[in-house]
Amino acid sequence: MNQVNAKRLRSDLESLARIGAVPREGITRTAFSTEDSLARGWYRDRVEEAGLRLELDGLGNMVVCDLASAQEVPAVWSGSHLDTVPNGGAFDGAVGAVAALECLRRVTELKLELPRPLRAVVFSDEEGNYASLLGSSGMRHGFSRAELAAMVGRDGDRLLDALAVWPWSTGLPTETRVDPARIHAFIELHIEQGARLEAAKTDIGIVTAIVGLGSAHVTFIGDVDHAGTTKMTARRDALVGAAEFIARMPDIPRAVGSDCVATAGWMRLHPNVANVVPGRAEVSLDFRDLSRANVERMGDELEQLARRIAAERSLEVRWNAHPVISPAPLDEQVQSAIGDAAAGRGLSSMRLPSGAGHDSQNMAPLAPTGMIFIPSVGGRSHSPAELTHWPDIVNGANVLLDTMIRLAGS
Amino acid sequence: MNQVNAKRLRSDLESLARIGAVPREGITRTAFSTEDSLARGWYRDRVEEAGLRLELDGLGNMVVCDLASAQEVPAVWSGSHLDTVPNGGAFDGAVGAVAALECLRRVTELKLELPRPLRAVVFSDEEGNYASLLGSSGMRHGFSRAELAAMVGRDGDRLLDALAVWPWSTGLPTETRVDPARIHAFIELHIEQGARLEAAKTDIGIVTAIVGLGSAHVTFIGDVDHAGTTKMTARRDALVGAAEFIARMPDIPRAVGSDCVATAGWMRLHPNVANVVPGRAEVSLDFRDLSRANVERMGDELEQLARRIAAERSLEVRWNAHPVISPAPLDEQVQSAIGDAAAGRGLSSMRLPSGAGHDSQNMAPLAPTGMIFIPSVGGRSHSPAELTHWPDIVNGANVLLDTMIRLAGS
Repeated sequence: MNQVNAKRLRSDLESLARIGAVPREGITRTAFSTEDSLARGWYRDRVEEAGLRLELDGLGNMVVCDLASAQEVPAVWSGSHLDTVPNGGAFDGAVGAVAALECLRRVTELKLELPRPLRAVVFSDEEGNYASLLGSSGMRHGFSRAELAAMVGRDGDRLLDALAVWPWSTGLPTETRVDPARIHAFIELHIEQGARLEAAKTDIGIVTAIVGLGSAHVTFIGDVDHAGTTKMTARRDALVGAAEFIARMPDIPRAVGSDCVATAGWMRLHPNVANVVPGRAEVSLDFRDLSRANVERMGDELEQLARRIAAERSLEVRWNAHPVISPAPLDEQVQSAIGDAAAGRGLSSMRLPSGAGHDSQNMAPLAPTGMIFIPSVGGRSHSPAELTHWPDIVNGANVLLDTMIRLAGS
Repeated sequence: MNQVNAKRLRSDLESLARIGAVPREGITRTAFSTEDSLARGWYRDRVEEAGLRLELDGLGNMVVCDLASAQEVPAVWSGSHLDTVPNGGAFDGAVGAVAALECLRRVTELKLELPRPLRAVVFSDEEGNYASLLGSSGMRHGFSRAELAAMVGRDGDRLLDALAVWPWSTGLPTETRVDPARIHAFIELHIEQGARLEAAKTDIGIVTAIVGLGSAHVTFIGDVDHAGTTKMTARRDALVGAAEFIARMPDIPRAVGSDCVATAGWMRLHPNVANVVPGRAEVSLDFRDLSRANVERMGDELEQLARRIAAERSLEVRWNAHPVISPAPLDEQVQSAIGDAAAGRGLSSMRLPSGAGHDSQNMAPLAPTGMIFIPSVGGRSHSPAELTHWPDIVNGANVLLDTMIRLAGS
């Protein structure tokens, strides 16, 4: 039975984890940062070491091509991302990106002659510093120059400014769409980021669908005033309005559906000084469900809540919603292939949906797509506490290898 | 009648307003920043140009000495601050600091022989980046090394690190107490930062008392979790708890007293990322009243509210209150001297309390202390919209000059 090189896989993930590491506070590899660039350079070196070929696109997505002779035949793709949330973990994205490369390396080393070529892909900005699933959205539908020009990161920097000095792209950020005819199937290995596999003591998760994602940027605007000389009744305090909104926000997902979630994870105040009444409070919203209708309903109700609170408090409100990313049911045949691969290795498996968004949901409209989950200790993710045990990573990578070979038609 | 040099005063204030100016967003001269240092250098140059002598202390307070022969006699002091809130205005602090220097310059130029010497003072960090009224608190009671070591600015930097590279101090930050025997009286000229003088069409405000100030730093602590995979019922969302606290906070000053105010002006979230449930939310609190008992009662009730909300939401809470700065009634005789000076120039005046904190409240326990207010257009302050008209500034400076001369015993 074919096996990935477990020692090399671990060594690679350990090397990668040092790029952007913050002492005792996890890993910060924000998309298009210096740390992301160092990670891409490290990845390029691994690709070259293996004698494989790297292609870039206009948003910095990286595609590794194997040495198959029939390069024009639709390929089996796998991949994930190398960027992280601030103070994130060593496994989210990294496991799937490195394991996909490892599969191409093993197939090359083993000189397996497959009817279809293989591709390993690194998607840019999966964590959405500039836009949710930026790179894979670019592959799916592309972006106009105007759309890209409007994208701004957490720190207020413009995407196009970041790309202008990004060494890992073609320099043509609107040219990213992938011809679906190039893709026979897509599979992504990822950590679960939840605790269901651990609770069920199960090795492999076969993902049935990925939740839909709504997001919005809400700004409450009042008056900047002196905290000592402005009477309570004379204030238009933007933060007090935003706070009432955030405090009441969790009622909406609870009312819409039992699996619905909504989160205000990011805020910015202006001027953000102890002795000044805040004149502006910005809040990010992220809301998800397996039902697109529920996601849209949450978006509508959150907007109504924000507008109602602003009106009651004589604040101005700006509601800037981003397009809803549809829930993505994953391909039945790919699910079966993953299940067969797990069974073939004597690994237990279960089917489950993904509450987290993934690049796979952008690949699903392009080609039959599946996802392999491996257990997250305590379900913790987007945190320095994120952990997946090495044997689980090796299991996942071997199931990925088998599934890719199977889908490549051998 | 003696007059300040109105042209020089305006030119000085306009020069100073260029230091730390942010295009279209006011002035940012945070205490101990490069901009503050440039402002201090500019001030030192003005002092040297006038042939006066500058003394520094361990927290960077600057004291200008005139050329009076009897330097050992208790002096008449006046002054204010050169630091600003972020995106503040050109008048808060600057008017009083520059006008005090102008008074010393005029007395020197006019070769007035006064029985008592004069002092002009620039207090450090009035706006409280590191601690409320830091410099004048140092003059009043001093700080231990441990107290100074615990002080951290808005951006997370330590005061002692900032002082270590600050060129304008003796290098001995615990040595700042002023012997009250050195001070015969203290008078501060300041913009009102409220709209009472403007509404009453009155030239000069004679401050009767300064509000007491309570402040605290509250931290709500929950769990950092993935925004997509963590069910609403499984969350310990620090921001939702903090938001409920902020939304309910304004009820407390309203219940305690009609002039009470309380403000949450500053927040910091961790990790502050759209797709991550916040694990930590920090909030600053500023609460004020003319009654110390009311300030203490607000502090107690705010703490109880924070603890109750944290308990209901299974969050940890850390309540870090700073010592209450007592309300400061100002000296009757100094008030009379200001009133006489205004009347002598045919200016209208009224008595009023100050809702803003001022260095004068630290000087009041050391010596008879008074404050002169001049009108703020629309009452706006701590904002780029802050404005005081030049004739009002000249009026205020002339009243200050007369009051200092009067108190110096001539």
